[in-house]
Amino acid sequence: RSGEMAKLTQLIDNDVFRAYATYTTIVLLKMMLMSLLTAYFRITRKAFVNPEDTASFGKGESAKKYLRTDQDVERVRRGHLNDLENIVPFLGIGLLYALSGPELYSALLHFRIFVGSRILHTFAYMIPLPQPSRGLSWVAGYAVTISMAYKVLKTSLYL
Amino acid sequence: RSGEMAKLTQLIDNDVFRAYATYTTIVLLKMMLMSLLTAYFRITRKAFVNPEDTASFGKGESAKKYLRTDQDVERVRRGHLNDLENIVPFLGIGLLYALSGPELYSALLHFRIFVGSRILHTFAYMIPLPQPSRGLSWVAGYAVTISMAYKVLKTSLYL
Amino acid sequence: RSGEMAKLTQLIDNDVFRAYATYTTIVLLKMMLMSLLTAYFRITRKAFVNPEDTASFGKGESAKKYLRTDQDVERVRRGHLNDLENIVPFLGIGLLYALSGPELYSALLHFRIFVGSRILHTFAYMIPLPQPSRGLSWVAGYAVTISMAYKVLKTSLYL
Repeated sequence: RSGEMAKLTQLIDNDVFRAYATYTTIVLLKMMLMSLLTAYFRITRKAFVNPEDTASFGKGESAKKYLRTDQDVERVRRGHLNDLENIVPFLGIGLLYALSGPELYSALLHFRIFVGSRILHTFAYMIPLPQPSRGLSWVAGYAVTISMAYKVLKTSLYL
Repeated sequence: RSGEMAKLTQLIDNDVFRAYATYTTIVLLKMMLMSLLTAYFRITRKAFVNPEDTASFGKGESAKKYLRTDQDVERVRRGHLNDLENIVPFLGIGLLYALSGPELYSALLHFRIFVGSRILHTFAYMIPLPQPSRGLSWVAGYAVTISMAYKVLKTSLYL
Repeated sequence: RSGEMAKLTQLIDNDVFRAYATYTTIVLLKMMLMSLLTAYFRITRKAFVNPEDTASFGKGESAKKYLRTDQDVERVRRGHLNDLENIVPFLGIGLLYALSGPELYSALLHFRIFVGSRILHTFAYMIPLPQPSRGLSWVAGYAVTISMAYKVLKTSLYL
């Protein structure tokens, strides 16, 4: 079946599709970092949510006091959820956009702004920077996703 | 590399794939609206979660009172999370279904029911309508996703 | 347009892509089960969050007492969110990995470990098993996703 495989790899040989693959992988890896950050804050702040996670701190009341919420943990979790809410649309709309035959420079511009905006958003949320830093970085990624959605619908509308 | 690009655009020229692109983009845009709705309720209800978001209301206690939960904000957030939980499976299973060679009328039926069910679900949740409106609209989208998953596994099972 | 359809179905005829389609569908169906599990616990524990969901239990105070959080419901919801946080990266990175021309045995190994780790994670979370069961099952799926991301970037880096 090497003939089929050849066709498949042609997809990944296309420059726009390679750019989509690169930026999508980077932004998904960035999102995955949020899990490690949550674990880091849960352990250093000793703030857990599942009783089985505090078993190593002893039994009864001595362990129960670590079943609590912590401001830093909750902040990372909100950043993680915001990533999900915004990266899932990019995943789908970005793929369809990459397949809709955009110019390479236009595709790169869209992908770079999106990934840059999500990285800025994370720093703005985690440090935290004063508003409207977080708001504006969120808007940039949102706007670029709408722009790609417009291109997809213009190219391939079929209701 | 125009030869490869031609192959790529053939993908988006396929009617079933165009229908997938159209309905997926619509339902993802609908999900993105939930972010705007959350922002709208946070601002009009003055109910925020991050201290840096209330800085414009002054310092100290005068700003702290806006760090609170609000019923309307929480309702939109639950609707948004329910979207994520249901649209992510559609994104993946729907793509694989579109590539599994379904009949066009069958694909359109699946995509239309799914997107219609998610729009109804949002209205049922936000107004809110009495149950089982929200429950039934959720079930319709869920069932149609299972039906597409069945077709994918029947066509391409490889364990 | 049967020529184009033929090209599309060649994608799903590729063994690596078929394996991706199969394992992705299975892990998304597993994630969808979490919704049913949440509904099951909400109904059996009588723990709801929306007032319209308790209307069938009567009016006023008699229904209001069912608007409460329940430990089992919250546990399933955390498991569901953890699925979203980990399966969304697999959905995107796994697709790009499948298109990057990996060896079939290597692709199968990655997909099987990921799906196995998410199934184990669910059992470890829901039973619950003592730690580090849940932690290790999470790490396995995380590591395998990183490994696929590395292959994607090595094959198709285009910044």
